Order: sequence, then C-alpha cells, then structure tokens
Amino acid sequence: MGAGDIGGVMGDLSPGGAMAPWRSPLSRALHRNRSRPESRYFQLATVGLDGWPCNRTVVFRGFYPGGDRLMVATDTRSAKAQAYPDRPAAEVCWYFAKTREQFRLRGTLTLVTGEADEGNPAGQQRQALWQTLSDGARLQFLWPTPAQPRAPETAFTPSPPDPLIPPLTFALLLITVTEADHLELRGSPQNRWHYHQVGNQWQGMAINP
Amino acid sequence: MGAGDIGGVMGDLSPGGAMAPWRSPLSRALHRNRSRPESRYFQLATVGLDGWPCNRTVVFRGFYPGGDRLMVATDTRSAKAQAYPDRPAAEVCWYFAKTREQFRLRGTLTLVTGEADEGNPAGQQRQALWQTLSDGARLQFLWPTPAQPRAPETAFTPSPPDPLIPPLTFALLLITVTEADHLELRGSPQNRWHYHQVGNQWQGMAINP
Repeated sequence: MGAGDIGGVMGDLSPGGAMAPWRSPLSRALHRNRSRPESRYFQLATVGLDGWPCNRTVVFRGFYPGGDRLMVATDTRSAKAQAYPDRPAAEVCWYFAKTREQFRLRGTLTLVTGEADEGNPAGQQRQALWQTLSDGARLQFLWPTPAQPRAPETAFTPSPPDPLIPPLTFALLLITVTEADHLELRGSPQNRWHYHQVGNQWQGMAINP
Repeated sequence: MGAGDIGGVMGDLSPGGAMAPWRSPLSRALHRNRSRPESRYFQLATVGLDGWPCNRTVVFRGFYPGGDRLMVATDTRSAKAQAYPDRPAAEVCWYFAKTREQFRLRGTLTLVTGEADEGNPAGQQRQALWQTLSDGARLQFLWPTPAQPRAPETAFTPSPPDPLIPPLTFALLLITVTEADHLELRGSPQNRWHYHQVGNQWQGMAINP
C-alpha cells in the first residue's frame, strides 16, 4: 500500500450495459461506510513466483469506465507487478467494519504500464488516474525501489513529478472479477450470496454462511 | 469469517523464550487500535486446490501459549480447512485503520482438529478456545455446510452444542510465521521493516516503503 491518498474515484456506472449483480450491494456498502476512509481499502491476494500467497492492502480507485473492473494504482517495481505476467490470478477481500459485511471478489489482473499507447483507452485511463492522485501520492513513485534496504532520507525528497504525465514506475492495475461472494454478518443466521458468470451472464444464489 | 465474536484472547507472552521482534510492534498496534473491534480481524490468504489465491477475513484469537503462532477458529468444512493438507502456505494481511499501519505475516498453517489427542497440548488448546467462544459463535459450527445452497431457516436453529466439548466441525488453525513486514503509513517518508528467520534467530531490517 504505497499511496495512502484515495484521490478521485472514477465513474461508477457502466453506460454500455448492465452492471454485475454484486455491484449494487458493493455500492451500498461503500455508501454506508463512507464515513470511514479505510472502507476504500481492500486486501488483494495473489500468488507469488515462488507459489506462496501474497496479501497486501491497496486503495480502491473506482471502476474502469464502462464496466465492472476495479482500478488500483500500483508501482511497477512492486512484487505484485513483477509477478503479474506469470501470476494474474487474484482474490480481493473487502471487509466493511461499520456494516459488518465482506466481499470476496475473484478475478484476474491486467497491468497497464507506460508501454500502453497513450492513444488507447487504457493508456488514457492510466494518465487520468495519475492526474487524480495527490502530490504526496505521486511523489512515492519517485521514491527508491520498494522493499530494498532503506535508502538515506535524502532519496525520499525528489523533485515533484509532472502532474500530467505519469512516470514509468506508475501503473494502473485492473481486476476483472469472475466470481463474487457477499457475506453479511449482521443478522442471525447471517446472509451470504454467491455470484458467478455463465457465459456473458451473471448468476447469483443464496448460500449458507 | 464465520464467527463474529472475538471471545477471549489467550496469553500474549512466550514464557519459555524471547518473542519474535515483530510481536512488540504488533502488540502496540493491537493496543492502540483496541477501541475498534475490527482491529482483531485480519485477512488470511492461501492458495486453493486449483492454484487460485483465496482471501478471507478471520478473527485473531490470540497467540498459542509459549510461542508466536497466531490462533484462528475455523470450520473443518470451510475451503481453507479442506485445502490445508495440500496447501499450508499462508500470508496474513493485517491493516490497522486508526494508526494506519499494516503487518504482512507469511507463514504455514497447522490445523488442529478433533482427531488431535485430548491429552496433547494442541488438543487441549482447541478445547480451551472452544470454551471461550460465545454461544452464538459456537452455534455456527452446527449450521449447515458453508457455501452450499441456502438451507431452510429451521436448519440454522439446532440445539446448542456442548459448551465444553467442541464438535468435530470445530478446528483450531495455527499460523507459524516465518517472515513479517511492517509498514507505517504515517510519517513522510513512511517507515517499513522486514523480519525473517535465519536458523532459530530473527533478523530485522529497515526497508524502503
């Protein structure tokens, strides 16, 4: 979790089609928990190159316009970006403390780096996300390489990067969700739903908590 | 996250030896965030039998007496318990919202089921943990099989289980930590430490955030 600032959140609707059915309860949870900044953080699990699970807190940056893909800002030097080409499988765990509910979102990652053509929509979205970050969040992408032995303090005070053009260390990470699990701990018995895709259609069902 | 009740927390010290060095900042975080019940929840990532990462919220039940292993209560019918014999690798992600710090704890799982001899310490600890659960949390271990199609409401009102003797569905899950990563988001630049074991000794170092 490099960047603590949640910045602006992109469009929340899919103009081109129906939203996935887990989007509605997720939007409700985000709304009901909005008094807590950490309700926009979730835990992203992937598998490392050594086969070991990896788990870290990241900041939700909204949905990619026109669909249900979650957006996250990441550093191309991070372990998740390094492992991504070989290990795109992911599971989000998103717990909302105020309303006591959990979403587990299974899916695959797509990393949009500076190699993306600025003319293509994903490359444009990467730039747009960069422009919504705070100055402090942007500066982190010029810090010394994450997880290396601690560099001297002077290495953490670079000249501010261009607020319009992201550096090569900045990437947009997209999570394409293929399965979702929603658990409400409130109530007895608890409520739980499972959503999965069959072809292009989502199917949902109530399951045991 | 079946059981919402955090119950009693077991002994927090290692009478027989030195605590791992990440225990002290973790204890401090637990103390400073104690006003929030969810500070005792963390996200546990494992790898499923299909190789996909799995991620869910669980409740911290304290440290196994005399060491640094984290304790979690789990249902033997859950996916993590089913996958455990083949996939014991795990990574905990534990975010503390009030103090804005994150612990990532990498380690291996040990599942203590009803097959553990009641005469052995782990079997006794399983019983002891069962006895600290609330009536409501205990009842969940008699509910219908998790993640199956929703059973009728009457299936969720079984006779209360014995408060002293756990049912076979109840297991104690231990996490033996071999690496730890502690990130403090407060402050600029942020602070981050990495701890790992070399032989029987822990080594810690400051790393770049």
